[in-house]
Amino acid sequence: MDDFIFAEEITETQKISLKPWKILISDDEKEIHTITKIVLSNFIYENRKVEIYDAYSRSETIEILKEHDDIAVLLLDVVMETDDAGLLVARDIRETLKNNLIRIILRTGQPGSAPEKDVISKYDINDYKEKTELTTTKLFTTVMTALRSYRDLHLIEKNKKGLEQILESTRRIMQFKSSALFADSVLNELIVLLNLSKEVELKDNKVNAMIVDTSNNQFNKIASKGSFENLEGEYLFTKSITDKLNKAISLGQSYFDHFDYVGYFKNENDMVNLILISSESEINQYDKSLLDIFSNNVAVAFNNVHLTHEILDTQKEIIETLSEVVEKRSKETSNHVLRVAQVSRFLALKYGLPEDEATKITMASPLHDIGKTGIPDSILLKPDKLTEEEYEIMKQHTQIGRDILGRSTRPLLKAASIISYEHHEKWNGKGYPNQKKGDDIHIYGRITALADVFDALYHKRCYKEAWPLEKIIDLIKGERGEHFDPKLVDIFLENIDDILGIVKRLS
Amino acid sequence: MDDFIFAEEITETQKISLKPWKILISDDEKEIHTITKIVLSNFIYENRKVEIYDAYSRSETIEILKEHDDIAVLLLDVVMETDDAGLLVARDIRETLKNNLIRIILRTGQPGSAPEKDVISKYDINDYKEKTELTTTKLFTTVMTALRSYRDLHLIEKNKKGLEQILESTRRIMQFKSSALFADSVLNELIVLLNLSKEVELKDNKVNAMIVDTSNNQFNKIASKGSFENLEGEYLFTKSITDKLNKAISLGQSYFDHFDYVGYFKNENDMVNLILISSESEINQYDKSLLDIFSNNVAVAFNNVHLTHEILDTQKEIIETLSEVVEKRSKETSNHVLRVAQVSRFLALKYGLPEDEATKITMASPLHDIGKTGIPDSILLKPDKLTEEEYEIMKQHTQIGRDILGRSTRPLLKAASIISYEHHEKWNGKGYPNQKKGDDIHIYGRITALADVFDALYHKRCYKEAWPLEKIIDLIKGERGEHFDPKLVDIFLENIDDILGIVKRLS
Ligand SMILES: [Fe+2]
Ligand SMILES: [Fe+2]
Repeated sequence: MDDFIFAEEITETQKISLKPWKILISDDEKEIHTITKIVLSNFIYENRKVEIYDAYSRSETIEILKEHDDIAVLLLDVVMETDDAGLLVARDIRETLKNNLIRIILRTGQPGSAPEKDVISKYDINDYKEKTELTTTKLFTTVMTALRSYRDLHLIEKNKKGLEQILESTRRIMQFKSSALFADSVLNELIVLLNLSKEVELKDNKVNAMIVDTSNNQFNKIASKGSFENLEGEYLFTKSITDKLNKAISLGQSYFDHFDYVGYFKNENDMVNLILISSESEINQYDKSLLDIFSNNVAVAFNNVHLTHEILDTQKEIIETLSEVVEKRSKETSNHVLRVAQVSRFLALKYGLPEDEATKITMASPLHDIGKTGIPDSILLKPDKLTEEEYEIMKQHTQIGRDILGRSTRPLLKAASIISYEHHEKWNGKGYPNQKKGDDIHIYGRITALADVFDALYHKRCYKEAWPLEKIIDLIKGERGEHFDPKLVDIFLENIDDILGIVKRLS
Repeated sequence: MDDFIFAEEITETQKISLKPWKILISDDEKEIHTITKIVLSNFIYENRKVEIYDAYSRSETIEILKEHDDIAVLLLDVVMETDDAGLLVARDIRETLKNNLIRIILRTGQPGSAPEKDVISKYDINDYKEKTELTTTKLFTTVMTALRSYRDLHLIEKNKKGLEQILESTRRIMQFKSSALFADSVLNELIVLLNLSKEVELKDNKVNAMIVDTSNNQFNKIASKGSFENLEGEYLFTKSITDKLNKAISLGQSYFDHFDYVGYFKNENDMVNLILISSESEINQYDKSLLDIFSNNVAVAFNNVHLTHEILDTQKEIIETLSEVVEKRSKETSNHVLRVAQVSRFLALKYGLPEDEATKITMASPLHDIGKTGIPDSILLKPDKLTEEEYEIMKQHTQIGRDILGRSTRPLLKAASIISYEHHEKWNGKGYPNQKKGDDIHIYGRITALADVFDALYHKRCYKEAWPLEKIIDLIKGERGEHFDPKLVDIFLENIDDILGIVKRLS
């Protein structure tokens, strides 16, 4: 990693809005305040004026310091309401307020009462001056060297804060597995980072940001913030914006351009994601450093999220492909298992199951009839009605499925085993293989049962015509509390349009 | 995140080994060096003495500073070989050496030639003293306040360095997907972190470290460094070590204990990993802060690695389970597909394919006969020899497999499609379905062909006995350059013992 960049480069527009240095005078003599202010009235250091605060006692000094944690220099009298009020202030600052940045210049009118060597050794102060010593020039140079020390400390502290924020942001984005949540989280963290430096600016830094992927030779927004949020299509991807994005693609890397940053992220499979940030104020050196460092982490995290997705998608395809093999053999309608999976997911979420459970049902339910691989062709493919004996063999596909899948301890395969075993049980206890009743049937089984029967009726099969919708609805209503869980039937009937939408999309 | 801990807590043993502060005197008058050394001879600040370096010119000063980047204070004469030699040194330090930490105290004998206000404004120095002003006390307090500033800067800088290192370490560990590589990388980074603070210590910090998992109610080492590296079993998990590990388990969290750190990492599936670090020097406050912050990231990364593994293992089990279903139907010996997978992996690696290709073959090869699901029972299960016509139908399992798997764009399924399509081609062009020859047959197909035939011969099937090994070897030798790729046959024969080991383990 490059060393975190130290230099600050300040543009002309930024100079105007720079905040002044804060200086606190703590002295019980009013005159000292007046004189000090006159001397420092035209003081400018690194393009910043000074703003002076006044305190006349120990408690007042501490109050003001508590309110302003960004006071750079304290000009501190030793003797105020007590002989050692100033020394106690110095101790309070370091030990109680834990302020190690403020530079403390002790000013004493009676050097005898607080000898220099003693005081400097015992108290964590940064300069010691006798009041007589403070000619105009001396005060001026003393304040300037104190500000210089404060600036140095403050700059490293600011860099340290930036690194802390990057670390925290990195930890947060690492926790998201889904690309949409991940992308959203990356943008949130980028905005936090870009607002870290606002202390230099007077106004808040308004930031518009989005992440796009570049698959199918076009830009697709996967997350956005600010003014990009409500725009889509040609309203979002104007010529000006696509030009910015394309520049990163032709450069093959991230770049900064005054108010813009375009991050370029290519993963191990050569897929490119881009992040566009358009800030309302110029992106300064500090912001650039933060963005550079954070982007390195985003790149790794992007790759991880992509790999996880790739594996999960592959897993889904394997299950669907192999389920389809089974389905083909028993001459089910094409895509039957995909439709059962998606309708099951829909019912699971409406039923109130959490997202990860719904996902498990979606992934596992295609395997519900895997046990049919153990049923001989002569029964499975028999065009006529099965005999009593043949039907008993056919029913065994539930146990065969449970046995095939149940040897694994993986949550997904365990779920598939349950679904295979219980998808022919009925709410009223008249199903098979175990005549389980009501809630004793696993919710996975109850959900898949309804989705499976619905899709089988809704589509034509070699041995039967498709049923008309009204007839299916009548049957399902009639089976409320008989074949099917009544709560699921209610959900089904209330959402029939959505369910038909899912089924039609996959027919 | 908690703010990075600022305080340093120094033990008595550490005090003794603390390094001195480095101070550089840059002056062309030898006498000034002598006097300064006398004044500072008994100087102690924060339990550390001073060590003084001497330079007599601009170039000498810069040389010494290049060699020692940890000099805290420079006592700098203005007029040396030229009137402004000192001022140029100050500029070189900040602009050329980019050293912003060293505190520069300018000492001038002729204040008229370098007026205070001018010099302080133009040069990035931290104090300005006329030589006459430097009484014993004044020199003493001036050096002390300069060291105090340096200490403040240095401490934040050190914390910043720690954060930078944590960031870099985090990025590195995030890139590992396999738990063994990940664990090894975590230990490497922990050792780097624990050696960051060695500047306080005189000796290198020797660290012994290991990561264990706690599955099956016992500790299993998954990575180790230092003296833990060559130990296993009871020699590693002595009572003293298991006590330390068990303490973290009963606390349910990480803890520090003088020379030891035990990190406790529980993932979303409630699996616990532990990291034990035994350092030869006491773990100080700074190390603790680094370990605490880094551990938070390790925890997230651990969880990610675990999830990826869980998904991959699930994927592997799904493929194996479903392949076994197919295998069962065609009455192959149990575990045939697992053995073909592992023998294929072995051959792939010896052939010189990279790790990820070998993994792809391992994952995909169980699906080589998936097309048999499209072959009717009457042919697939026929006990007698197939007729010419039936054999032609049987051969179609290669194309059926290609079609089932080939609709996907996922690399794993594409590989499985290739294997399914080409595992019956022969090197001499006499295979099926396309009579491909030599290198025209995909390496996936060539490898799986050999592994498949070998395992089929080696095991008993319903229609044949297992062949004796010598007979199999004779056949494979005879088919070198006929059925099989000659290079693969050579690899096979050279490694027959390893291959038999794999096969026997899975029989
Ligand atoms: Fe079924
Ligand atoms: Fe085959």
